[in-house]
Amino acid sequence: MGLKRRLYEALAPEARRTGLSLTNACIVGLVILSFLFLALETEPTLQVPGWQLVFHVFNVTVICIFALEYVARVWSAGIDPAYRGFRGRLRFMAQFYSIADLLAFLPELILMAMGSGMSLLVLRVLRLARLIKIARFIPAFEALGAAVRRASSLLLTSLALAVTLVYVAAVLLYFVEGIGGNQQEAFASIPRAIWWSVATLTTVGYGDVYPVTPLGRFCAGIIAIAGIGVVALPAGVFASAFSDELRERELSSLRSELEQTRADAAAEKSND
Amino acid sequence: MGLKRRLYEALAPEARRTGLSLTNACIVGLVILSFLFLALETEPTLQVPGWQLVFHVFNVTVICIFALEYVARVWSAGIDPAYRGFRGRLRFMAQFYSIADLLAFLPELILMAMGSGMSLLVLRVLRLARLIKIARFIPAFEALGAAVRRASSLLLTSLALAVTLVYVAAVLLYFVEGIGGNQQEAFASIPRAIWWSVATLTTVGYGDVYPVTPLGRFCAGIIAIAGIGVVALPAGVFASAFSDELRERELSSLRSELEQTRADAAAEKSND
Amino acid sequence: MGLKRRLYEALAPEARRTGLSLTNACIVGLVILSFLFLALETEPTLQVPGWQLVFHVFNVTVICIFALEYVARVWSAGIDPAYRGFRGRLRFMAQFYSIADLLAFLPELILMAMGSGMSLLVLRVLRLARLIKIARFIPAFEALGAAVRRASSLLLTSLALAVTLVYVAAVLLYFVEGIGGNQQEAFASIPRAIWWSVATLTTVGYGDVYPVTPLGRFCAGIIAIAGIGVVALPAGVFASAFSDELRERELSSLRSELEQTRADAAAEKSND
Amino acid sequence: MGLKRRLYEALAPEARRTGLSLTNACIVGLVILSFLFLALETEPTLQVPGWQLVFHVFNVTVICIFALEYVARVWSAGIDPAYRGFRGRLRFMAQFYSIADLLAFLPELILMAMGSGMSLLVLRVLRLARLIKIARFIPAFEALGAAVRRASSLLLTSLALAVTLVYVAAVLLYFVEGIGGNQQEAFASIPRAIWWSVATLTTVGYGDVYPVTPLGRFCAGIIAIAGIGVVALPAGVFASAFSDELRERELSSLRSELEQTRADAAAEKSND
Repeated sequence: MGLKRRLYEALAPEARRTGLSLTNACIVGLVILSFLFLALETEPTLQVPGWQLVFHVFNVTVICIFALEYVARVWSAGIDPAYRGFRGRLRFMAQFYSIADLLAFLPELILMAMGSGMSLLVLRVLRLARLIKIARFIPAFEALGAAVRRASSLLLTSLALAVTLVYVAAVLLYFVEGIGGNQQEAFASIPRAIWWSVATLTTVGYGDVYPVTPLGRFCAGIIAIAGIGVVALPAGVFASAFSDELRERELSSLRSELEQTRADAAAEKSND
Repeated sequence: MGLKRRLYEALAPEARRTGLSLTNACIVGLVILSFLFLALETEPTLQVPGWQLVFHVFNVTVICIFALEYVARVWSAGIDPAYRGFRGRLRFMAQFYSIADLLAFLPELILMAMGSGMSLLVLRVLRLARLIKIARFIPAFEALGAAVRRASSLLLTSLALAVTLVYVAAVLLYFVEGIGGNQQEAFASIPRAIWWSVATLTTVGYGDVYPVTPLGRFCAGIIAIAGIGVVALPAGVFASAFSDELRERELSSLRSELEQTRADAAAEKSND
Repeated sequence: MGLKRRLYEALAPEARRTGLSLTNACIVGLVILSFLFLALETEPTLQVPGWQLVFHVFNVTVICIFALEYVARVWSAGIDPAYRGFRGRLRFMAQFYSIADLLAFLPELILMAMGSGMSLLVLRVLRLARLIKIARFIPAFEALGAAVRRASSLLLTSLALAVTLVYVAAVLLYFVEGIGGNQQEAFASIPRAIWWSVATLTTVGYGDVYPVTPLGRFCAGIIAIAGIGVVALPAGVFASAFSDELRERELSSLRSELEQTRADAAAEKSND
Repeated sequence: MGLKRRLYEALAPEARRTGLSLTNACIVGLVILSFLFLALETEPTLQVPGWQLVFHVFNVTVICIFALEYVARVWSAGIDPAYRGFRGRLRFMAQFYSIADLLAFLPELILMAMGSGMSLLVLRVLRLARLIKIARFIPAFEALGAAVRRASSLLLTSLALAVTLVYVAAVLLYFVEGIGGNQQEAFASIPRAIWWSVATLTTVGYGDVYPVTPLGRFCAGIIAIAGIGVVALPAGVFASAFSDELRERELSSLRSELEQTRADAAAEKSND
């Protein structure tokens, strides 16, 4: 078995019926690690020479690995008849996931080659494109979109309702707390009152903004008890749609695996 | 096709089986935009000449558009046999939605005509009547009322329970924190303790008020773990009733659409 | 129809198949009003002569009405064969609800008669016994107990789990934040850490106590994401048991009403 | 009946079909009490001679009781044919629960014998091993693991999604609040922003960190309304799996009890 086929089997998700190949599992791990390092890199208390070196070495390594992976992926894609030849490779490179693979290392590689030391902050965010590298292997991310589409009408309706309630609650508190009684700064305009309204109705309740007049507290209490259910509606609708979607996918994948096993068994029998 | 019929088809929701006409979609967008501007208008940091001009121009434009829309709506309503003639138009104007349409521009138009510059705050709130303009096109707002009626007995019961728990928790903490140990200001009366009780049992937890004595914290902890489920009950009851209501409406609208399609197909066949 | 029978029909809940008599509805209203006044009475800013007079007059009125109601209830109970005669009345007065009726006015009536001006704080709390006066008319309060009994095993298990998690999370943060790194006051002992643990895992999050070291925040984050579901479990179990219980009661009351109507119809027919 | 058999019946959970023997109930109570004392012992305000004595006496008593219990458990295990003889006892002592029983008293007993006064803090935490002493009697703790295994795929997926959302929200706010506009300390790095992200998306909302720029608040509001459902997903998945698991266990235990009763009845009949 040639190197090309081995690479294909190690890299292409279509080459395996279920699970991840060892290579792909390593790539997933590397992406997660690179997110951890991206987070640490921004921490001011870690901006000391020692850690900076660690970050630099790690980044260079990761970029090189992803560059090699990209080349291997494009080259070995030729095993699949759909991507054979030069035009096939171009078709392969124009795919959504291939572009994400490219974005995961190219911008930083170019900067590195230019010797600018990868200091540009915005470029670092392009590393979030690596999320798509993982998404390919986690069917749940696909299920996410399917769940949203599935419950789209319910979701839109409940979102519209939630947003309306947030707005009306903000207008009410703006009048009661901002214009009325104690002229609080935090309720001095509707946009500011919306900040209170969102924090309260999602039950986050930071405590940076809250009504202080008796009437404001009375209104806020009524709004909180009555409104929390409405604002939690979109979350609930999405959660149930997503969980239904995942269950169905699990069922259908089990079913297709079963059928495959049966077909294999039947084929074996007829061979005897 | 005359202008009147064209206007009727563009404006009356009954003229289309599903969805919104382009005109109505624009009106919905305009209402949403006007809410955005209403919010920004109240922001003190935007009360500078430049923004004030933008707000003024926008308000005048919107009021004129809604006035024109109202006139067009009343005039074109004559296409519907139910609202033909002068008395029919009066009947049309006496409808709930028509009155809301009128309130959406008339008060501000009068003020504008009197040259007072639309500065009256309370009048601006009448713009919330524009919410009803949208509500007409979003069946969910109707479903809201139906859901409340549907689960009314469960809702009332769970609300009564939630309010009772909030009250009893407030009385308890009033004794433990307000009268007992450390005489906290924030628990100095039952109404003040109710503010704590609502913030805690809805899990908003602003942090402006909390028990500080060991006994108060012990009681608050027990109340929080045991009581959150009770206070979340009305929200849960409403959410499930609303989601059931929406699902049923979607089903029944799909069913009636199917029947309509079948009837159309049958009619076509018999024509052949 | 004598006064006794009229009183019986106005007061005894058993005298009516469904709903409340006007008299009982008034009593329910009066109890709710008395809770509102109990709350306002404790507010320091309302302790001025004018309000004090209002509270005094209201309290005297309510106590007199409840005293009269109690006498009328005991006297008219004789209509029911089970409570006829002197011994029957004693049996009636020994009932749970009758004792609550007595507690709702007697202690304060005695103090009033002694001229001490109802100033004793603790005595006022006995007014919470009036809650039982309402509970009699709201079947949901009975359903409360039934729901707890129904799901008792699940409730106990999930409560045990929730309490265990709260304890273990507190011990963990006590070591990480209290003993380790920055020696925070708020985590200086396990009981204090439990206060943090309860506030976090119920998602109340007052913000008076929170970890500040990186390790403490890391642990708190993991605990929050993983543990909120466990601590919300008892609330969810109770909510679903209570809502099931209420639904069943509604169904069974509808069913018995239907049967009663059928039996009435059959009886009428056989009379013809 | 000899002492050994009596001890076996008092101590071994397998000796009884359901429920706890009095001895085991006492041990459960003692463990819970010892957790209460462990908590109080750490409280600085209770570190006075009086309380210290109470803690010391309690600890010594508990350690002695658990030592005696351990000896009795090992000795009486011989009643079970599986653990007869010296090698059987060794097998018994190598069990998970027996090791937990040993850890519950031995380390502190050794320290006590060495006269060091049990002052070592870390050793005290070994008392958490006593949790396993209770876990043996509460089937729910076993159900916990089963529930996690049952919904493992759904749990993992929803956890991955929740963690991704927390990370992406943190990166977004890091750019908007930390790098942009007002250079807030609390958003100065991604790890710090993650702390905000966790506190917000779990709706804990301590209020130590929150966005203050208009753009930051806008983003935070959108994230809160849209994201709360996603982060609550793992909690919901676990809660429903756990409650299903408990229900099934209750059903199957009822069923096996019923079968046992039937078998007993049949055996009795055939004896007649």
